Amino acid sequence: MSFAMSNGYELWLNYDKISDDTVLKTYRNQLQSVFMEEGGATMEAIMMELEMGLGGLLDREIRFDSLPSSGNQLVVSKYGSLPKDFKEDINIDYLNSEGYIIKHIKKSGRGYLVITGKEDIGLLYGTFHLLRILKMHQTLEGLNLEESPKVDIRMLNHWDNLDRTIERGYSGFSIWNWQTLPDYIDQRYIDYARANASIGINATALTNVNANALILTPQYLEKVQALAEVFRPYGLKVYLTARFSAPMEIGGLETADPLDQEVIQWWKNKAAEIYKSIPDFGGFLVKANSEGQPGPQNYGRTHLDGTNMLADALTPYKGNVIWRAFVYSEHDAEDRAKQAYSEFVPDDGKYRDNVLIQVKNGPIDFQPREPFHPMFGAMPNTPLMMEFQITKEYLGFATHLVYLPKLFEEVLQSDTYQKGKGSTVAKMVDGSLNTKKLTGMAGVSNIGTDTNWTGHPFGQADWYGFGRLAWDPSMNSEAIADEWLRTTFSNDEEFIKSVKKMMLESREAVVNYMNPLGLHHIFDTSHHYGPGPWVGNLSRPEWNPVYYHKADEDGIGFDRTKTGSNALSQYAPAFEEKFGNLETCPEEYLLWFHHLPWDYQLKSGRTLWDGLGIKYQQGVDQVKQMINTWENMKPYVDEYRHNQVRMLLGIQLKEAKWWRDACMLYFQTFSKMDFPKEMESPENTLEYYKSLKFPYAPGIRPQWD
Amino acid sequence: MSFAMSNGYELWLNYDKISDDTVLKTYRNQLQSVFMEEGGATMEAIMMELEMGLGGLLDREIRFDSLPSSGNQLVVSKYGSLPKDFKEDINIDYLNSEGYIIKHIKKSGRGYLVITGKEDIGLLYGTFHLLRILKMHQTLEGLNLEESPKVDIRMLNHWDNLDRTIERGYSGFSIWNWQTLPDYIDQRYIDYARANASIGINATALTNVNANALILTPQYLEKVQALAEVFRPYGLKVYLTARFSAPMEIGGLETADPLDQEVIQWWKNKAAEIYKSIPDFGGFLVKANSEGQPGPQNYGRTHLDGTNMLADALTPYKGNVIWRAFVYSEHDAEDRAKQAYSEFVPDDGKYRDNVLIQVKNGPIDFQPREPFHPMFGAMPNTPLMMEFQITKEYLGFATHLVYLPKLFEEVLQSDTYQKGKGSTVAKMVDGSLNTKKLTGMAGVSNIGTDTNWTGHPFGQADWYGFGRLAWDPSMNSEAIADEWLRTTFSNDEEFIKSVKKMMLESREAVVNYMNPLGLHHIFDTSHHYGPGPWVGNLSRPEWNPVYYHKADEDGIGFDRTKTGSNALSQYAPAFEEKFGNLETCPEEYLLWFHHLPWDYQLKSGRTLWDGLGIKYQQGVDQVKQMINTWENMKPYVDEYRHNQVRMLLGIQLKEAKWWRDACMLYFQTFSKMDFPKEMESPENTLEYYKSLKFPYAPGIRPQWD
Repeated sequence: MSFAMSNGYELWLNYDKISDDTVLKTYRNQLQSVFMEEGGATMEAIMMELEMGLGGLLDREIRFDSLPSSGNQLVVSKYGSLPKDFKEDINIDYLNSEGYIIKHIKKSGRGYLVITGKEDIGLLYGTFHLLRILKMHQTLEGLNLEESPKVDIRMLNHWDNLDRTIERGYSGFSIWNWQTLPDYIDQRYIDYARANASIGINATALTNVNANALILTPQYLEKVQALAEVFRPYGLKVYLTARFSAPMEIGGLETADPLDQEVIQWWKNKAAEIYKSIPDFGGFLVKANSEGQPGPQNYGRTHLDGTNMLADALTPYKGNVIWRAFVYSEHDAEDRAKQAYSEFVPDDGKYRDNVLIQVKNGPIDFQPREPFHPMFGAMPNTPLMMEFQITKEYLGFATHLVYLPKLFEEVLQSDTYQKGKGSTVAKMVDGSLNTKKLTGMAGVSNIGTDTNWTGHPFGQADWYGFGRLAWDPSMNSEAIADEWLRTTFSNDEEFIKSVKKMMLESREAVVNYMNPLGLHHIFDTSHHYGPGPWVGNLSRPEWNPVYYHKADEDGIGFDRTKTGSNALSQYAPAFEEKFGNLETCPEEYLLWFHHLPWDYQLKSGRTLWDGLGIKYQQGVDQVKQMINTWENMKPYVDEYRHNQVRMLLGIQLKEAKWWRDACMLYFQTFSKMDFPKEMESPENTLEYYKSLKFPYAPGIRPQWD
Repeated sequence: MSFAMSNGYELWLNYDKISDDTVLKTYRNQLQSVFMEEGGATMEAIMMELEMGLGGLLDREIRFDSLPSSGNQLVVSKYGSLPKDFKEDINIDYLNSEGYIIKHIKKSGRGYLVITGKEDIGLLYGTFHLLRILKMHQTLEGLNLEESPKVDIRMLNHWDNLDRTIERGYSGFSIWNWQTLPDYIDQRYIDYARANASIGINATALTNVNANALILTPQYLEKVQALAEVFRPYGLKVYLTARFSAPMEIGGLETADPLDQEVIQWWKNKAAEIYKSIPDFGGFLVKANSEGQPGPQNYGRTHLDGTNMLADALTPYKGNVIWRAFVYSEHDAEDRAKQAYSEFVPDDGKYRDNVLIQVKNGPIDFQPREPFHPMFGAMPNTPLMMEFQITKEYLGFATHLVYLPKLFEEVLQSDTYQKGKGSTVAKMVDGSLNTKKLTGMAGVSNIGTDTNWTGHPFGQADWYGFGRLAWDPSMNSEAIADEWLRTTFSNDEEFIKSVKKMMLESREAVVNYMNPLGLHHIFDTSHHYGPGPWVGNLSRPEWNPVYYHKADEDGIGFDRTKTGSNALSQYAPAFEEKFGNLETCPEEYLLWFHHLPWDYQLKSGRTLWDGLGIKYQQGVDQVKQMINTWENMKPYVDEYRHNQVRMLLGIQLKEAKWWRDACMLYFQTFSKMDFPKEMESPENTLEYYKSLKFPYAPGIRPQWD
C-alpha cells in the first residue's frame, strides 16, 4: 500500500480509471485510437498527456494510428494539416491563435473526435479540455465546442523570494529551488506547467514584486532559462520582476533615473541579454514607488516615465511591461483608496503599446470584500490588467475554506456604469468595451512546496478558478466549482450538490466573521493573521486598522462620500449616486463608504450595532454548518483528504470565533452597548485577544530596506 | 497513471507487492494469518503497519486469528502474554526493555513465527524488522533473531527554527508546521514517526540548538504536545532545546544565573509545566556559551553549574539534560580543536546521573574527514553522547551522493587506545568499556519538506544508516547499504553489487575532491557552499579557512604535535605516538596534525604538492565513475529516481571540479609549483572562483544576536 495516495499532489489531473462502467465502456468504444499530427515539443507534451490521461482514464495503453482509420478515433491536429474533407466540417474563422475546436464529426459513416486549432498550443488546451470532459463523464456524441481565451495574458504572480520564503505564502515555501537550478529539474516544474496549461494560464512571474535585482544577473538568468525551457512546450511564458534600482545595484551605475542615457542603455542591454537565452521571455512586472520600493519618483520622474523607458527596452522583442498601480504615499494624507487613481488616470493613453497597468481588484488591498477599483473603466485608452490575490493573505491563510472564484466573480460582474448600465469590470478586463490592444489578468499565487501545492485541499479550487476566469471572465463561479469538484473528487451528485453549496457560501461566511457590513483592513499588523482592530501605533496612518474603521463613540465606518474623503467621486456618476445614498447603498458596503452611528437602523430594523454582532455570529454559524456538511461527505471522499479538511475546518471555527469575539469586544468599548441576544458570549477578554502575538506567522514580508 | 509514483516519499517503507513469485508464494504460505495481543496505541500502530506492510507485500488482506491456530501464523505478543508452551521455546533473559526476539517455532507440528519482547515497543521494532526481512526476500524457516539496542538514546537533532527555516538544511524547510499545530496533524508527522521507529530511533529534539526561548511558552508547548502524542505510540520521545536565557526572555527574570534561586525555581516550574502535558518528555538539549549562545559563563559559572541545575529540574520526571560540548571561545587563542576537551574533561564524574555530554564526532566541525574527538575515552565517568551530522553541511549539501554511514563507521571503529588496543569509539559510545549508566547517539537531521524527505534520494540512506548505527554502533556500513538498497530500490544482485560499491566509495571521493590529506574547514564563509580556502577576513580567527590550512611559501597543514598546538596530547599516548610520528601517521590525517613543506615526500614517492593535485583529480574521476555506474543502472531503477540521481550527479561533478580547480589554484600561489601531470587544467581563473557569491545558498544560520 502506498501512503502517498490521494495526497492531492495530482490536483485536478488525477487520471485514475473511470469508475462508472457504462461511461467507461462508451468512451473505450468511441476512442479506440488516436491520430496525432507530428510536431515539436508541444505535440510531445500532448502525446505524453494523452498516454497518461486517456491511458489512465480508460485504463489501457493508447493506440496511435494513422488518419483516416476505421473511425472511433481521436484526432489531434492543427487545422492546416487536417484532411480536406475534415476541414469542410470545421470553421476556424473565429478562433484566436490560442483557441481550439473539439468537434465530433462523421466521415464515410465513421466517427472522429477532432481537436483542432490554428497553433499547437490550442491543441494542448483542447486536449486538456477533452480530458476534463471525460473526467466529468460528459457525452462525446455530437460534441461541438469552440473556445478562444478572452484575455491575452493569463498570469500567475509568485511573490517568491530568492531564499524561497514567499511573501504572503501559506502553503510551504517557493517551489523554485534556485540552489539546484539550472541542472536539477524538479518534477514539480513540469507538473506546474501541466497544471497551468490545463486551465489556460499562459504566463508566470517567478519572483516577488518586492523585487531583488539579483534575479537579473547572469547567475540567476541561467536558472530562469532552465525553467523557461521546461514551461515553453506548455505555452507558459516567464516574466520577471524588475527592481527599478537594478542598474545601480547590479549594474554599477550611480542612478536609476529613467531619463538618464546610461540607465536607458543598461535596460536595453539587459533586455538583449535576457532574450538571447529566453527568446519568448514575457517581460517585466514592476512594483515601483510603493511601500518602500524604488521607482522613477526617486528621481523626480513619473510612473509614466519609468514605464515607457522599460517598455522601449522590450519593444524589439515584443516583451511587455506590467506596471502595478498599487501605490500610495507616506507623504500623501489623501484617503489611500484614492491615490492609485490620482496617480495613473491623468496619463491615460500615454503609455506605450506594450504596457499594461496592473490594478488590484479593489482600491485598498485584497480584503474579504471590497468594491471594485475605480480605475476599472476610468482609463479607456490604457490596457488595465486585473490583479486578484489567490493566496489568502486576508482570508484565513491556507487554513480557511473560502472559495475565491465567488469573490472574483463578484468583482468581475460589478457594474462600473462607465459606458452605461452593464459596463461590467469583466468587459473592461477582456477589452470588449474598449477594444484594448492588450488584455490581462494576474493572480497572486497560492502555490508552495506543500505536497498538495496549496496547503488547504480546497485552495486548489482557487488556482483552478482563477485560471478559468482568466480564460473567460464571464464564467460563473458555480460552474467552475462544479468542474473542479468533479475533476478533483467525485462525480457523485449528492457530494457535488452539498459541497458546491458549501463552497459557494464560504466566501460570505468569511466576510461575516471577519469584516461584515463593509468593514475592512482590521487585521493584526504585519502578518495579517487574525483580528487587530485596535492597532493604531504604526508609523504610517494608512497601515493602521483604526484608520479604516474609524470607530468612536459616535459610530463606525469610513466616510468616502462628499462629506468625507469623496473617494466615491472616482467612480461613474451612477455608481456614486447609488453607493453614496444610504437608501440605495448595499449593506455589504455600508461602512466602506459611510460613517454611521451605532444606533443607525438597518433594513432589518435592528441597530447597526446589533446588526454587526448578528453578522459576526452568522459567520461563525456558517462555519459550523460547513463542518456539518463535511462530516456527511465522509462516504464520498478518501480518508486522507477528508481528514485534512476536517482538521482545517476545526481551525476555521476556532478562528471565526476569535474574530467575532475580539472585534465585538473592541467595538463595544466605543458603542457601550450590550451584545445582541443572537450572539454567543465571547470566550475570552479583550485584553487576552490584544495580548496574542504571532512572531513566526507565515508569509511575513522580510525587511527590505 | 499517478505521477506521484516512486517519488521517494515512502522511504525504505515501500510496501509494493513482492516481485519474486517464488518468494511471494512461500511467504503467503508461511504467513497465513496473524495473531496479535490486544493492547494500546503501540499495538494499534503495529496492526496498522502489518495491514499496510504485510498486506501490501503479500498483496492480500491480512487475516487476524486467535492462538493457537492451524499454524503458519505470525504471532505478535509480549513474552508475558504468550502461551506457556510458546514461552518454553524462547529465552528473553538477555533482552532489554526495547529488545525483541523473532523466532520460528513449531508447536504440535505447526509453524509459528513469533515476534516477542518485554514491552510493546519491542514488538513494534520486531515488526519492522520482519517487514525488512520480507522486503529483502530472506528466509523465514528457522529464523531465530535476538535484538536489543546497544545505545539508550537514539536521537535526531533537528536544527529547525520556528519560522521553518533549517540551519544547515538542504531538503526544503522544516516539516514542523507550527502555524497549523496543534489542530492540524500533517500525515508527515505520522510517517516521520513510522520511519524512525522502523530503524529504532527513539528520541527527537524538534528545535535548533541555536535556540529560541519561545518554544518553551504555553503557545508552543501545546503544539509540541500534539507532536508528542503522534510520536508516543512509536516510542519516539520529544526533546526541546532550552535557551539558557529563557528565564529572562520569557520568564521576566533579570538573570539566568544558574545559581540564582529564582532561576532554579523558574526551571523547576517550567519542567513541571511541560511534564503535565507531556508525561514522557525526554528533556532538554542545550548549546550554551558557544557561538554567541548564552550560558552559565555569562554569570561567571561553569558548564557544570548550568548542566546540573537543569538536570535537577528534570530529575523528578526522569528527564535528561543533553549538554553539547561544542564550545570554543572568541577570547581563547588556543587551537579550537582543543577547547572542548579543556572545558569538560576536568569535571568528569561531577555531572548528575541524568546528564549526557554530547560530543561531535571530531574536534572541529563535521568535516569530510576528522580524527575522532579526543573527549571520547577521556571522560570515563560521564556519559558521552556521539553527535553525527546527517545533513551534509560540509559534504556537498543535498546535491552530492556521499554515503555517510561509511564516515560514521570510520569514527566508531577508530581506536582511542584509552583502555588499551581495541578501545574503539563505538565501545565508548555504547558504554561497554565504561559501564555507563546512560548512553546516546545523536544525528543532526537531514529531513525537510522535500517530497522524498532528504532532497537527494541517497540522502535517505544516511538517515537510515544513522538509525541502524545508533541501534548497534558495531554494525558495518556495507551491511547497512545492502539493507537500504534492497528495501528502497531493488533486490536485483547486479544492481546491489554496483550501487553498493558506488556508495561505499563515495565518501572517499568527497574527501578527495574537497579536503584531501587531512585538510579541513576550507569552505566558503557562512553558507559553507563550495571552496573558500582564501577567506581570512572573518572577525574570529578560528572562523577563517586560512587558520586551518596555514598554507604559506614553506608548506601547508596544522601542526598539532608538540612543536605546534599539541592537540595530540589530548589523545591516549599510543594514539599520540602514532599520529605524531610522520612515519606512522596515516596520510589521510597528514595535514590535520602536521605542517609540511610542499616538496615533502609522500609514501608514493611524489611530493606533497603533486600528491594534493593527484588526490583532487582522483576525487573528480571518482565522480565520473559514479556517473558511469549510475547510467548502467537504468534498467533497475524507476525513471523518476534515476533521473533525479542522474541530474544530481551532474551537479556533483561540476562542483568536484570547482573544488579541485579553486583549491589547487589558490595553493599554487604559495607552492609556486606546476600542477602534477595527472591533473586536468583548471577551467577558470582563481579570480573567477574568488568572485563567486551565493547570498541565498540554503541553510545559512540566521542572525542571532
